Amino acid sequence: MRRSHRIAIITKILSEHPHQLFSLSDFAQMFGAAKSTLSEDLAVIKEAFAEKELGKVETLPGAAGGVRYVPKLSRTELFTRIDRLCQKLSDPGRILPGGFLYLSDLTSDPVVIREIGEIFAAYFAGLDPQYIVTVETSGIPLALATAHYLNVPMVVVRRISQVSEGSVVTVNYVAGSSQRIQTMSLARRALPVGSRVLLVDDFMRAGGTLRGLAELMAEFESQVVGTGVLIEMEQPSAKLVEDYVSFISLEQIDSTNQVVKAEPAPWIKP
Amino acid sequence: MRRSHRIAIITKILSEHPHQLFSLSDFAQMFGAAKSTLSEDLAVIKEAFAEKELGKVETLPGAAGGVRYVPKLSRTELFTRIDRLCQKLSDPGRILPGGFLYLSDLTSDPVVIREIGEIFAAYFAGLDPQYIVTVETSGIPLALATAHYLNVPMVVVRRISQVSEGSVVTVNYVAGSSQRIQTMSLARRALPVGSRVLLVDDFMRAGGTLRGLAELMAEFESQVVGTGVLIEMEQPSAKLVEDYVSFISLEQIDSTNQVVKAEPAPWIKP
Repeated sequence: MRRSHRIAIITKILSEHPHQLFSLSDFAQMFGAAKSTLSEDLAVIKEAFAEKELGKVETLPGAAGGVRYVPKLSRTELFTRIDRLCQKLSDPGRILPGGFLYLSDLTSDPVVIREIGEIFAAYFAGLDPQYIVTVETSGIPLALATAHYLNVPMVVVRRISQVSEGSVVTVNYVAGSSQRIQTMSLARRALPVGSRVLLVDDFMRAGGTLRGLAELMAEFESQVVGTGVLIEMEQPSAKLVEDYVSFISLEQIDSTNQVVKAEPAPWIKP
Repeated sequence: MRRSHRIAIITKILSEHPHQLFSLSDFAQMFGAAKSTLSEDLAVIKEAFAEKELGKVETLPGAAGGVRYVPKLSRTELFTRIDRLCQKLSDPGRILPGGFLYLSDLTSDPVVIREIGEIFAAYFAGLDPQYIVTVETSGIPLALATAHYLNVPMVVVRRISQVSEGSVVTVNYVAGSSQRIQTMSLARRALPVGSRVLLVDDFMRAGGTLRGLAELMAEFESQVVGTGVLIEMEQPSAKLVEDYVSFISLEQIDSTNQVVKAEPAPWIKP
């Protein structure tokens, strides 16, 4: 097989499996080629990705070593993606009765979700989470995409306990916006005690749900290493959680004048 | 930029955007190269993918033409993936009180879900669906992965109507296993009238949920062009839906003798 053929195939495998370590022997066997030849192939891929800022190809030395693709984004690309989403959010046609904003088309669009999942993965990779945790329903696609790009499992907390999941741990929490007591639960076997978890959700008003999630994680003796929110409502300004990162600030939903104001979070602006 | 560099970058872009058409001009501009040069690059990628049976690179001629990557799987690869999942399902440790089987770790594992989503996309691509429709919660990851590989949006039907989604259409249906009346609803704006939809779910017992979904689609005057189910319970043998395709047959969950029997559907066996 020619070098250019091998480069196409290795690139496909690496980019479809972010953060997964492949040994040179795996590739050597696949192509019937020497490891030194594959090292040269990988150097080409590494250079190409670096030149176009398409993420990093990392080579880890030693017996347990190998090569893996790590998603990274330039600041420009981060801003471009978030800004594009803000423009979609700012369409007054999204305003619903009651001052709600219609988001379901975006939170279930695979293209949008992968772009944002890659952002989340690149941003939170350094915290080395073992699980991406979210609560049903609308946060699931984003959590799954983040989990894909970090190569770790996703865990979905349920709002209604399922008989088909065995013994569960349940917590009650106060939804910040409605002040109602709500319930969330997670199967005992869904998350090993003592895990490092990243909490992910698509939308945050007062932060009641994320606080409930954090309390549930405490029941699993698990450490919340980070909390990522795609869209944060500016009001109420007092939030029930600390140490979270949001990417979009929703400043206003004005149904009288038909104005929505969504902006990239200040730290993202170039 | 050298050919091998271009090949790495084009491969990454194509494989990360299945079923998306890129014009040669897009790539020509990106690399500052002639279209004829890029045609040669694409021929190399096409040959490499074909040789390793890693899907198809299709070139469409004409002004509206371009190139796209279409996932395809060999029969061997299809069987290998499904059989591997059957082995995981057959672990008696999954048996829960009440004769249920614990599946959440698999239905929220990004690696498993992408492998199966690619299978669904390859299988159903010919039916040309415009939307992938599922009902919350456990089917969402599989539906999203299928939608990604087919490059179409996903639509998530809710079991509980959400105030934040505007006007909704609601149907009642009888859940086949429990004989209880249940409700599902979908926002009017989530699905244009007259769409071609593919229904996807992770698990089917009697098919009541999928029948409810089909009835809901009729309310949207939309055509169900296909129905895909990952795991089908063999009992009850009388199902409430016709014309569905299942990939795994769950023949037995015997909690007394601690036996689970899951097999690839007969049509998959080599």
